[in-house]
Amino acid sequence: MLNRVPLKEDIIDVHNKIATCIHRTPILSSVSINTILGCELFFKCENLQKVGAFKFRGASSAVLSLTEEELKRGVATHSSGNHAAALALAARIKGANAYIVMPRTAPQIKKIAVEGYGANIVFSEPTVKSREETLDKVVEKTGAVFVHPYNNYSIIAGQATAAKEIFEEINNLDYVISPVGGGGLLSGTSLAAKYFSPGTKVIGAEPKGADDAFRSIRDNTIYPSENPKTICDGLLTSLGQYTFGIIKDNVERIITVEEDSIIKAMRMIWERMKIIVEPSAAITLGVIMENQELFKGKRIALILSGGNVDLNNLPWK
Amino acid sequence: MLNRVPLKEDIIDVHNKIATCIHRTPILSSVSINTILGCELFFKCENLQKVGAFKFRGASSAVLSLTEEELKRGVATHSSGNHAAALALAARIKGANAYIVMPRTAPQIKKIAVEGYGANIVFSEPTVKSREETLDKVVEKTGAVFVHPYNNYSIIAGQATAAKEIFEEINNLDYVISPVGGGGLLSGTSLAAKYFSPGTKVIGAEPKGADDAFRSIRDNTIYPSENPKTICDGLLTSLGQYTFGIIKDNVERIITVEEDSIIKAMRMIWERMKIIVEPSAAITLGVIMENQELFKGKRIALILSGGNVDLNNLPWK
Repeated sequence: MLNRVPLKEDIIDVHNKIATCIHRTPILSSVSINTILGCELFFKCENLQKVGAFKFRGASSAVLSLTEEELKRGVATHSSGNHAAALALAARIKGANAYIVMPRTAPQIKKIAVEGYGANIVFSEPTVKSREETLDKVVEKTGAVFVHPYNNYSIIAGQATAAKEIFEEINNLDYVISPVGGGGLLSGTSLAAKYFSPGTKVIGAEPKGADDAFRSIRDNTIYPSENPKTICDGLLTSLGQYTFGIIKDNVERIITVEEDSIIKAMRMIWERMKIIVEPSAAITLGVIMENQELFKGKRIALILSGGNVDLNNLPWK
Repeated sequence: MLNRVPLKEDIIDVHNKIATCIHRTPILSSVSINTILGCELFFKCENLQKVGAFKFRGASSAVLSLTEEELKRGVATHSSGNHAAALALAARIKGANAYIVMPRTAPQIKKIAVEGYGANIVFSEPTVKSREETLDKVVEKTGAVFVHPYNNYSIIAGQATAAKEIFEEINNLDYVISPVGGGGLLSGTSLAAKYFSPGTKVIGAEPKGADDAFRSIRDNTIYPSENPKTICDGLLTSLGQYTFGIIKDNVERIITVEEDSIIKAMRMIWERMKIIVEPSAAITLGVIMENQELFKGKRIALILSGGNVDLNNLPWK
């Protein structure tokens, strides 16, 4: 796996490698949303990516960077979300084992999803300590390669390919906005902008109720994510050492968004664009809705990071 | 407007004319749905078309076929659905007036949508007789050109462009499946297949509870749509003279689908593909679900005709 901040050629190389695995997702636009908000928006639909999230780019990048010998040992991670499903599918495509450590309290639907991609689930107690110890044991026993969800340069290079595709199709963008949780997507996006569209500024979108990345960048220190309160279940984690460094150097600013705006943005995307996005993706449009003056007349790409929601439990019901 | 069954060159000409107005919608695929159903499916996403439905293709085709003099007089139709919104938007793009006759009992949300596109709504009583008389009066008074939702060759040529785009991108298709209500989309699709992919068979998808097209083709006579009972609110109308003739000559068969399968198919598309489709679109996947043996191993394009649903009233709640 990559052991340095991805260079331009690393991202090009990763993109070539994963191109046959991933969907090249469409970039959609909506005249009515543009009219309402007074700017020109381009929605990069990673909700339409395999496993329903951009995470499959990073996971494919990580798995395809492994040696034959490493592939034989398999990959491991702790996650109950999109990264787990993405890593499981990427491993399966290469015929490798995936070991996913999950708290035994994880929702049944997530267990089924990860099992559906052929992974081996190893249960831990629902504490960070138990999760990490269980992962250590799995790695020790199987020799599997640990693939961190975001604090991993191969993962970051993979996530960067979403923005690279945007710059290949859309010129003269003033901004790209990406959600920020652990920072894998945002850091990759900022590297892609630096290498492929240096005139484009990169903004991170973070829930006001989980604003650890905003504070971390402001104070130049990584804060943990403590008691985050947000509907954005994909944005609960704190930055890692690697993602923090890249974001600090390459991201224009992080903008926080109210819960109400996130839900309003989500509904606007569903209704006007006819696509299903999760709150963690809709937050990028929430940034625009709350800052219309700032973005007036600008050309802006929004990365719709994922579309995994429980259809029986929608926030406007 | 066209006064003959569209020829190959008519459809090419219409497609060139409307290309700058319409979205060229993406064609998506889902490995997991293919695995579950044992065939290779290509989803043409007309739910992502402007106004959320393929209807905008036909409406643009009709409006762009008008003379300057006709445009000055405007266009008129009776509809409370997608055709009304599509005609209103197409007219607005050309700076023409659109007169939409709607029963005064139509849902508020539909009135707002059509008004949002700048159309003049003229209310009638909620009977066919009043609707037609009101339309006649509007046409008499304004000189507007009546644009029938489907029994109109310019409309049919416009709807044909969705399948034309499929054939430009996907080779060796065994089948194309389109929903059938009034038959505008299905007849256009069958002409596109005949001209651009003669090896591809065209199938119509119709709710079992509104099977007038199935019976009309079987008995070689146009039956009215009497007391249709289906969740597919876009498929309640009967065939017209023009669409009947084209379908009879060019469509392989019409397959009817149970309500349960339509809802199951809709949910599968929402969950697996992360796009919003209305029941009238999901019925095409319902055809596959109910006839897996017939389609085993085949390459099939499904036209997802629209995505206009009430998010507060989903069928699985």
